[in-house]
Amino acid sequence: MKFSFTSLGCSSALPTVNNYPSAHVLNVHERLFLIDCGEGCQIQMRRYGISILKIDHVFISHIHGDHIFGIYGLLSTMSMLGRIADIFIYAPKGFAPVLKSFLKYFGDGFKYNVIHKIVDVREKEVIFSTRTIEVSAFPLNHRIDCYGYFFAEKEPKLNVFKDMIAMYSLSLSEIARLKNGEDVARDSGEYLKSERLTYRPYKPRSFAYCSDTAPFTKLKEYIRGVDILYHEATFASDHTAMAAETMHSTAGDAARTALEAEAKMLIIGHFSSRYRDTNIFGEEAKKIFKNSHVAEQGTKFDVPIEKNR
Amino acid sequence: MKFSFTSLGCSSALPTVNNYPSAHVLNVHERLFLIDCGEGCQIQMRRYGISILKIDHVFISHIHGDHIFGIYGLLSTMSMLGRIADIFIYAPKGFAPVLKSFLKYFGDGFKYNVIHKIVDVREKEVIFSTRTIEVSAFPLNHRIDCYGYFFAEKEPKLNVFKDMIAMYSLSLSEIARLKNGEDVARDSGEYLKSERLTYRPYKPRSFAYCSDTAPFTKLKEYIRGVDILYHEATFASDHTAMAAETMHSTAGDAARTALEAEAKMLIIGHFSSRYRDTNIFGEEAKKIFKNSHVAEQGTKFDVPIEKNR
Repeated sequence: MKFSFTSLGCSSALPTVNNYPSAHVLNVHERLFLIDCGEGCQIQMRRYGISILKIDHVFISHIHGDHIFGIYGLLSTMSMLGRIADIFIYAPKGFAPVLKSFLKYFGDGFKYNVIHKIVDVREKEVIFSTRTIEVSAFPLNHRIDCYGYFFAEKEPKLNVFKDMIAMYSLSLSEIARLKNGEDVARDSGEYLKSERLTYRPYKPRSFAYCSDTAPFTKLKEYIRGVDILYHEATFASDHTAMAAETMHSTAGDAARTALEAEAKMLIIGHFSSRYRDTNIFGEEAKKIFKNSHVAEQGTKFDVPIEKNR
Repeated sequence: MKFSFTSLGCSSALPTVNNYPSAHVLNVHERLFLIDCGEGCQIQMRRYGISILKIDHVFISHIHGDHIFGIYGLLSTMSMLGRIADIFIYAPKGFAPVLKSFLKYFGDGFKYNVIHKIVDVREKEVIFSTRTIEVSAFPLNHRIDCYGYFFAEKEPKLNVFKDMIAMYSLSLSEIARLKNGEDVARDSGEYLKSERLTYRPYKPRSFAYCSDTAPFTKLKEYIRGVDILYHEATFASDHTAMAAETMHSTAGDAARTALEAEAKMLIIGHFSSRYRDTNIFGEEAKKIFKNSHVAEQGTKFDVPIEKNR
């Protein structure tokens, strides 16, 4: 029942050898979600053993090159690997002509559909949902149309306490009904309340992605209580003015958002290549929000299951 | 007076961690020419210390993704690095709409022009020339419009023999005229022949790029006597039929072309990712053409100056 985040690249616009452009993978119960797709994404996936064909859903924050130039190679490779399943790309409307042009000139022979789901929300809004996960989009505050994504694990199904199974000699059909939240009235007159015999096996987990954005008041509401917050920190405090001008955040901005949003953990990334040593970002963030971590390509952050029993 | 070739990527369509898609740099007297531009090219340039802003001329063989998907990131990075000098991209006509679409959606704020020089030749033809180098294009035999490139160092300027300078007490203007190939008639009646007093300091060097192509008879004529031949070898002899079907070459095909063209050295690349060990390509090629080398990213092949004196 995994819930883990791996960054494949945490540079901003100018990549370096150890810092590829933005691309990240969230693993939710072995279902992989790709978040942004900078140049070299497919190579990084191979480097870190992430199966390219396991990606069915991609979430793109905005149509700047460092968040999107890897999509061409990734989609082409999927075709060459024999993909036939449709792929869904959640992205702002600016992606439509880019995709159209790509498919026109490079999509010959594709045996699968690339389906662009336009993201265009004013407030936090659910855009995708499965049995285990719900993904919401919310607006960020960048130079162009730009969205953050909130991945919330759904409440797990109820489990029946083992000792209750023995005590009441529960049949399989009774267990199924109790797990479904239904009470069971036995012919004997016994009344078995689901509420008393069952429990939620674990606490749902969550992940929020905020890149690229200048800080803004409402952001903390969109991501309140999140287990892992990935937040951009293009600059350190020495370039506060430049951060404001380019509508980016500093490490301090990211940490303040994490603090105000009562996040459990902060991962910062999207570092400007002007910084040789990214530790400065961590130092600045930790002063404000203790559980801050500097993203490094390939490092996995797990949210362990917090069992209710 | 360098003349050296560095491969930045020698995979075919599916890249691997140690084998990026096609992109190569030829250094001619510290002028850098980029040949093909697969995904991750800009990252590989940084990895191998090749200055991104020193590229003014790019030569694209054909418009398949593994030869072109790095151009988006490279051009964007050039803009962010403050480029103002025009860049010239020699590429088949299929590049025109791709470039147009890229510039439309990602070219905002570019302070330099991207000039597409259409390559469309039926025979070997000079397409670019400077004081030191002449570049010709010639047709290859692939599934789409595809061109090879021949880089020929020009004859170097004449040097005057040092002992002759002393013997005739040559003035600077006399030396300049002799170097220019002119004879000098002195007032004294002495007649100094350029041909006798000068020599060519070194033998011009050459490099040919042949990727992607099925073997064809005329190819050897286009590249006759070349110092370094880079030739694709997508397959080994176990996939001869697939090579023919996809209009690619085997290592043996490449070696036979090198042999028949009387090349001095063969470098093979563009390997299919189905081969875990690329040594098999070298073994097969060496049986036919002894001076064969397997391309590895980052390895530099120099053609040393062969001095005439």
